[in-house]
Amino acid sequence: MKEFNIQSVDKSLQTSIQEKIDNLNKPKGSLGRLEELALQICLIQHTLEPSLAHPCHLLLGGDHGIEREGVSVSPREVTWQQMINFTLGGGGVNMFCRQHGFKLRIVDVGVDYDFSAVPGIIDRKIARGTKNFLYEPAMTEEEFDRAIMVGVELVDDCIQEGCRVFCIGEMGIANTSPSSIWMHFFGNIPLAECIGAGAGLDTPGIRHKYEVLSKAVDNFKNSHLSTLNSQLSTLNFQLSPLRYFGGFEMVAAIGAMLRAAEQHLIILVDGFIMTACAVAAIKLYPAAQDYMIFTHCGDESGHKKMLDIVGAKPLLQLGLRLGEGTGALCAFPIIDSAVRMMNEMNNFQNAKITKYF
Amino acid sequence: MKEFNIQSVDKSLQTSIQEKIDNLNKPKGSLGRLEELALQICLIQHTLEPSLAHPCHLLLGGDHGIEREGVSVSPREVTWQQMINFTLGGGGVNMFCRQHGFKLRIVDVGVDYDFSAVPGIIDRKIARGTKNFLYEPAMTEEEFDRAIMVGVELVDDCIQEGCRVFCIGEMGIANTSPSSIWMHFFGNIPLAECIGAGAGLDTPGIRHKYEVLSKAVDNFKNSHLSTLNSQLSTLNFQLSPLRYFGGFEMVAAIGAMLRAAEQHLIILVDGFIMTACAVAAIKLYPAAQDYMIFTHCGDESGHKKMLDIVGAKPLLQLGLRLGEGTGALCAFPIIDSAVRMMNEMNNFQNAKITKYF
Repeated sequence: MKEFNIQSVDKSLQTSIQEKIDNLNKPKGSLGRLEELALQICLIQHTLEPSLAHPCHLLLGGDHGIEREGVSVSPREVTWQQMINFTLGGGGVNMFCRQHGFKLRIVDVGVDYDFSAVPGIIDRKIARGTKNFLYEPAMTEEEFDRAIMVGVELVDDCIQEGCRVFCIGEMGIANTSPSSIWMHFFGNIPLAECIGAGAGLDTPGIRHKYEVLSKAVDNFKNSHLSTLNSQLSTLNFQLSPLRYFGGFEMVAAIGAMLRAAEQHLIILVDGFIMTACAVAAIKLYPAAQDYMIFTHCGDESGHKKMLDIVGAKPLLQLGLRLGEGTGALCAFPIIDSAVRMMNEMNNFQNAKITKYF
Repeated sequence: MKEFNIQSVDKSLQTSIQEKIDNLNKPKGSLGRLEELALQICLIQHTLEPSLAHPCHLLLGGDHGIEREGVSVSPREVTWQQMINFTLGGGGVNMFCRQHGFKLRIVDVGVDYDFSAVPGIIDRKIARGTKNFLYEPAMTEEEFDRAIMVGVELVDDCIQEGCRVFCIGEMGIANTSPSSIWMHFFGNIPLAECIGAGAGLDTPGIRHKYEVLSKAVDNFKNSHLSTLNSQLSTLNFQLSPLRYFGGFEMVAAIGAMLRAAEQHLIILVDGFIMTACAVAAIKLYPAAQDYMIFTHCGDESGHKKMLDIVGAKPLLQLGLRLGEGTGALCAFPIIDSAVRMMNEMNNFQNAKITKYF
């Protein structure tokens, strides 16, 4: 895998930023989470006058071999159908992007469909879906590396346009399955606690999903991992389940997050799947977390526990479980408010108000 | 007090609205709270195509006699200083109104200052602050009725401009004190659990606040209430603490909420003080709650308990405690998303997507 040069945020301005926040004409701390966001964003951008220029939304699509095992309530064809629907502007993600001024990039990283006749989809297809990880690794090392680079290059394209803040949505039927398994590995959490209803499984459906994933994890641990164990570095240990279980859209998301952290962009993370990718990115490069804002905790069982792995405190809890990055988009105006607070609010001196601490 | 004709929302469209929501191209229920909001707003507006035209924000200012007892960390002059600051555009409320396209009306209902030389403040002054309720009722019956009518007329002005959604902010040093006492009466909650730090009291400050308010409540119960008890109707029983402890800006807010409910407007409620006013409005006219969206639960001790009195589930929890209605403004884009969902999202039929259950 490509190496990244990710530094923690430079904290040399922290005292000045905090002084500016404390001196705005409001009781100290009275804008709560907005003040925390403002501090984080100012640190990321190393400035007292932050900006959220040219927000971008990457919508990454990919199919999953494990879908063949009936772990999802929706059939695989929904992935390509929704991708086309997004190009027509009728999805949840389109509505939010229009509302908040995000440029939407719809990217095929590995959907099981030929989009060559469909305008509006960026072609970065690695394969028509991953392999079925119940029997074999989801992707080869070469595919993994290419997926990481897809993410890197997409972020570079955004930066070219002046983008300083972005989020990622995913479309990939069955992608809660690899996310649950990653959570199991990265959080050391029993697999059963990592598995939820996805887009709407009933109780027998969840039991079946558990049985399939449990078998896949056992296979991985028994064969694949044991052969690696003797010569395993920490990095390889982290990479191993990423490649074995991951989706192309998920690995591309990790590449995008790591590149964004390297380039000091603000990364808005939402959803169960994108949180799994963010946790993976943080396990690989802990400093990447400085650049992430966790925007939403959904109802997917275990999402809160996954956020706890990295001590993340989400902004919203609106019970969203649509995916597509909608939670991150939904939270954007709150992040915008934090930035406006820094740039637009008067301070006690110029407003001539008795400072009420 | 003026009588209001407040009807529960007409539910004859409920099935059609829910069918429309369930048929949008997303897993059923996957937009969580947005779907609940969409249903409520469609019921309020009796339509399947809701609209949030001409949002208005009423910023109501008033001073409080009880401030003389040292129950607030900030001195009384901060009320008028902030009112002037709002006219200059430098307050938290200004920033949020600009961000979300709200028309801001800054109204003096009872500030202890002569604003005659200040442009941009609507003059509805009833008196220069209420009386000190430690010793006497905060306002007379006539003042109470006038304050209610100030709220009514302000909402009528908004409606004239086509407004269908509005929120109220308040500026009034010491107004957490009457709010806590209302909570005590309306929720039957021990006074100590209703009292918090306001804009930043320390522990001895909170103890002093409790002692003052406790004495005031005892005075009210011993003298005022006992003389009323014999001839008290339920309505008078509710009205009694409103007039005895309330602020002009708070009573005007109640009038505004009741008029808005009568006219089927969407009412965005935030903050400890505005929640106290909303609970008061609901106690007077229970159907008014159908028109209210509770937007934010702050850190002010007891806010959650007060929301519980009417079973309200707030949208956001961002630790805001600035007042000025900032929580409601902050939540507006989420409410806007709910409306856009109804008007902009494709359904499964026209998007040609396999309906996933």
